[in-house]
Amino acid sequence: MKIGIIMGSDSDLPVMKEAAQILNELQVDYEMTIVSAHRTPDRLYEYAKSAHKRGIKVIIAGAGGAAHLPGMVASLTCIPVIGVPVKTESLGGLDSLYSIVQMPPGVPVATVSINGAKNAGILAAQIIAIQDEKIYKNLENYKKELENMVLEKAMKM
Amino acid sequence: MKIGIIMGSDSDLPVMKEAAQILNELQVDYEMTIVSAHRTPDRLYEYAKSAHKRGIKVIIAGAGGAAHLPGMVASLTCIPVIGVPVKTESLGGLDSLYSIVQMPPGVPVATVSINGAKNAGILAAQIIAIQDEKIYKNLENYKKELENMVLEKAMKM
Amino acid sequence: MKIGIIMGSDSDLPVMKEAAQILNELQVDYEMTIVSAHRTPDRLYEYAKSAHKRGIKVIIAGAGGAAHLPGMVASLTCIPVIGVPVKTESLGGLDSLYSIVQMPPGVPVATVSINGAKNAGILAAQIIAIQDEKIYKNLENYKKELENMVLEKAMKM
Amino acid sequence: MKIGIIMGSDSDLPVMKEAAQILNELQVDYEMTIVSAHRTPDRLYEYAKSAHKRGIKVIIAGAGGAAHLPGMVASLTCIPVIGVPVKTESLGGLDSLYSIVQMPPGVPVATVSINGAKNAGILAAQIIAIQDEKIYKNLENYKKELENMVLEKAMKM
Amino acid sequence: MKIGIIMGSDSDLPVMKEAAQILNELQVDYEMTIVSAHRTPDRLYEYAKSAHKRGIKVIIAGAGGAAHLPGMVASLTCIPVIGVPVKTESLGGLDSLYSIVQMPPGVPVATVSINGAKNAGILAAQIIAIQDEKIYKNLENYKKELENMVLEKAMKM
Amino acid sequence: MKIGIIMGSDSDLPVMKEAAQILNELQVDYEMTIVSAHRTPDRLYEYAKSAHKRGIKVIIAGAGGAAHLPGMVASLTCIPVIGVPVKTESLGGLDSLYSIVQMPPGVPVATVSINGAKNAGILAAQIIAIQDEKIYKNLENYKKELENMVLEKAMKM
Amino acid sequence: MKIGIIMGSDSDLPVMKEAAQILNELQVDYEMTIVSAHRTPDRLYEYAKSAHKRGIKVIIAGAGGAAHLPGMVASLTCIPVIGVPVKTESLGGLDSLYSIVQMPPGVPVATVSINGAKNAGILAAQIIAIQDEKIYKNLENYKKELENMVLEKAMKM
Amino acid sequence: MKIGIIMGSDSDLPVMKEAAQILNELQVDYEMTIVSAHRTPDRLYEYAKSAHKRGIKVIIAGAGGAAHLPGMVASLTCIPVIGVPVKTESLGGLDSLYSIVQMPPGVPVATVSINGAKNAGILAAQIIAIQDEKIYKNLENYKKELENMVLEKAMKM
Repeated sequence: MKIGIIMGSDSDLPVMKEAAQILNELQVDYEMTIVSAHRTPDRLYEYAKSAHKRGIKVIIAGAGGAAHLPGMVASLTCIPVIGVPVKTESLGGLDSLYSIVQMPPGVPVATVSINGAKNAGILAAQIIAIQDEKIYKNLENYKKELENMVLEKAMKM
Repeated sequence: MKIGIIMGSDSDLPVMKEAAQILNELQVDYEMTIVSAHRTPDRLYEYAKSAHKRGIKVIIAGAGGAAHLPGMVASLTCIPVIGVPVKTESLGGLDSLYSIVQMPPGVPVATVSINGAKNAGILAAQIIAIQDEKIYKNLENYKKELENMVLEKAMKM
Repeated sequence: MKIGIIMGSDSDLPVMKEAAQILNELQVDYEMTIVSAHRTPDRLYEYAKSAHKRGIKVIIAGAGGAAHLPGMVASLTCIPVIGVPVKTESLGGLDSLYSIVQMPPGVPVATVSINGAKNAGILAAQIIAIQDEKIYKNLENYKKELENMVLEKAMKM
Repeated sequence: MKIGIIMGSDSDLPVMKEAAQILNELQVDYEMTIVSAHRTPDRLYEYAKSAHKRGIKVIIAGAGGAAHLPGMVASLTCIPVIGVPVKTESLGGLDSLYSIVQMPPGVPVATVSINGAKNAGILAAQIIAIQDEKIYKNLENYKKELENMVLEKAMKM
Repeated sequence: MKIGIIMGSDSDLPVMKEAAQILNELQVDYEMTIVSAHRTPDRLYEYAKSAHKRGIKVIIAGAGGAAHLPGMVASLTCIPVIGVPVKTESLGGLDSLYSIVQMPPGVPVATVSINGAKNAGILAAQIIAIQDEKIYKNLENYKKELENMVLEKAMKM
Repeated sequence: MKIGIIMGSDSDLPVMKEAAQILNELQVDYEMTIVSAHRTPDRLYEYAKSAHKRGIKVIIAGAGGAAHLPGMVASLTCIPVIGVPVKTESLGGLDSLYSIVQMPPGVPVATVSINGAKNAGILAAQIIAIQDEKIYKNLENYKKELENMVLEKAMKM
Repeated sequence: MKIGIIMGSDSDLPVMKEAAQILNELQVDYEMTIVSAHRTPDRLYEYAKSAHKRGIKVIIAGAGGAAHLPGMVASLTCIPVIGVPVKTESLGGLDSLYSIVQMPPGVPVATVSINGAKNAGILAAQIIAIQDEKIYKNLENYKKELENMVLEKAMKM
Repeated sequence: MKIGIIMGSDSDLPVMKEAAQILNELQVDYEMTIVSAHRTPDRLYEYAKSAHKRGIKVIIAGAGGAAHLPGMVASLTCIPVIGVPVKTESLGGLDSLYSIVQMPPGVPVATVSINGAKNAGILAAQIIAIQDEKIYKNLENYKKELENMVLEKAMKM
């Protein structure tokens, strides 16, 4: 199990499942569950503290509003944490973005775009790929496909 | 010991000590210490989980940037938590404000203004005063003094 | 009657009634009415000035736009005032938030998230609970339920 | 006495005195004092409710942060109220601007720019001038002078 | 003809007609037309320069985006100009608000809230009322009605 | 005379002279003067309406706050107008940027960065260069120099 | 072929085709295709580096979010580049605007409003018109039509 | 050589050298140089395309304003790219943040806080540590030291 995907609420699932889908496509193992910083703080501690031992290499954490999940996980482990700011109704996700990206010195969170769960998955795969040439190849192919899709559309226009 | 004042870093002390000063003035007991959500997460857990038993009635928590301290404390206790968004260099404290005030349903943080530690102290005293008429009187006197100061200045102008 | 819930307009009711619902659930008494800072300023003065004598312990005030209701109530009483910034059409409630949270030194408003009336109710209950262990127990049970709900959803995923 | 200039605190005086200066220049009578919405709410009521009877034609009100003074005055009188959002340290006066300009239907505040007390004075004079051709002439002359100053500077460049 | 209502485009009519409606209700004369700062700059000049002579006492100007109409009119006349920032699709009217309210020293625009045309009408009536006690009475009655509407709704709740 | 540089106030000169300096460097003719949209509207009209006849090919207009100069010039001529949003004290130039860039359909302003007068000069030269290969060569050399400066600094590091 | 219109994705076509339509109307030649900075970086290089030789006089580039297309094209050629910030779902296009307009000294992008592709087309025509009096005439006629449309609507109102 | 640190300008060095310092402390190899997306686009292409072959495992890229360096590097390689938004004078680095974090689907940039170069270094080390237990140990020790520093300061208070 290489990647752990967690989210603060099941309402984040429509966004966060894109991380799972792209990891499937790139053939990277993952697990996915709900861990709420504010409603299940004990679960958060256990999850984050045990992740390294359980063989998790990268954690993807999505949350919205005063989004503390990614940063708190990052405070409890030394494995890389990728934060996905989930869009919010009133502030468009700017609250989520600030709560995740503006971490203090010493505890980074690798932040992607608002609702950018797909990119979180790709970034996780890129991290795994620093020691796994097969995944690196998969990423190169994926990049190539993206390029080809654009070139085809350009042809048609 | 009625009020617990905590802050994420000693660099927050110049702001947060205003909470202590006004509590002194209003004759409300307090303790003050450093608890960092990101650098001392275990201390955060212990502090928040033991607060009620130790007789703490209100917690004032100040933090800046991706400010998770007030919200995480609030997730671990049922006593009221007052959050002070500390001003930041790049975003003027807007990041701190969003990270503290935009809590999800179920876990409130009573947020005051950016760098509003003095008001956090007054709010804590107001909460204590719901069961302590002497403190309520002190608050009424304080309000009266504020009014008189303005009236005197108005006279002079 | 422990909690007073007020709002600037009946158009705020769909948001503000969530405060009433959670107070019901937590078994805390409340009253709810309309007080407009701008259209019924006299009523605002009477309401705020008489609240303490009438036994109100905490006031929850919701308003949108140039939201002056919570702050003006706070200027007229020493009991704690919780402000709910109501979402607005053009600025997403950022105007409401700034108008409520950025109070000057001396007069705090305990601000919750945009449209966060439910959290305002919980915060009011937390304040009442500093002198009422039964309400504190209700809050602990509520917190436990929130946790269990997340754990169940996590199971299913 | 035609114009009433009020401000929430004597710290607003360096900004607000520009309103007085330009009214002097334009030969419009005014009075100036401190009225704090949050620290002297009773004074605010008396001031606003008596203004019309005392012959005040326009009120200029400056305040910063959660700036309720202009809007609350406007709620208590039918004479025109001009609001000056005073610059704040953390949010640059955006909080003051939103708190003043975003008034609900029924109670307008004529808002000028952040720290725009000079323009508040000119606007007050323009309002007086709708019934006073001498002041209108003074305004035309002032406008002419502004134009000439720019033309002279353009010459020199 | 006392009040001139102008707007940058007929797409602003659904917003701006609220100014006309309230002026009708308050029994203040007005005219309403389209003047585009960017598409009919000559018309803008003629309109603004002739307004005073034609007996216009107050101009209400609504515009959206880079909203130059209110400010340019104000640069060409000494009669009071009220600016209505019209809501925009991408920035919610924040662009309109900044373009209207942030006028340089010497040339004020009395800015109301985003889409606040009704308040612009009331403000215009308040200005007219400084020399017309009948309009002042109408405004007092209107204010009374607003208050009564709130009180009735409060009764029902 | 190919390029006209104008600014709303001589206080904008420290920013706007960078446009002149780079045009000197790139050997493009220019004139520079003050034209205030709000204080010299007649001059604005004359300047903009006569520009094409006087042989001006591009106008660079800098202004701050409710910055109407670039847009109003653009409304009065068909030659390209480049807008420079000048930084402001309270809002950092965001007000200037919105006032300049958010022009309505039909009347574009080519907006550069806040305080980006140098880039305005380069852009003006690029426009001239579409019919003047010598200027195009100068631009290519300038680009080459920029590149070499970076490469040298990279060497040293 | 005078104008090159490019966009980062075919999802930008509904916005960007307005540039093509107005160029048709103004009788200016153009080509239109897809060039993605992030998915087809090699194509971006080739496109930008060959544009001058292929006779392209102006490039219009539209992109959304972290919108690098206009700026990167501008770094690779000396012909004028017009940037169109495409509206985004979460931040309303503010991210696109900042990513395009805030270019560093040396490499300007002529930025138009969010979704302002029509204005990009007009601006491109204005640039072409500095050497083509026929296009200039078309622009004058277009401006005249805009004016007449407004005047007609004003008549009807 | 495991980590490549690049920046858009030598003016970014005071910020970016913090990445180098922490990598020294954590005993991770790195190289540091200047690569400007806008002034040396060819160098950018070569750097990014050759990075994987040269054994670079992670790239840290810092840039300010319309910050295209991190995203363009990410478009040209499959190794993880960490973006550091450098603070800007007018917009506080919000422009840099949006330009870096809001990447489109397919091409992630792992964004850290404004001026967060130290965290970029730690994050790079965390990525390296997924295959290097010695670095992981160093990170654990660093985390322990951070904790101890806070605990000592808490003691003293």
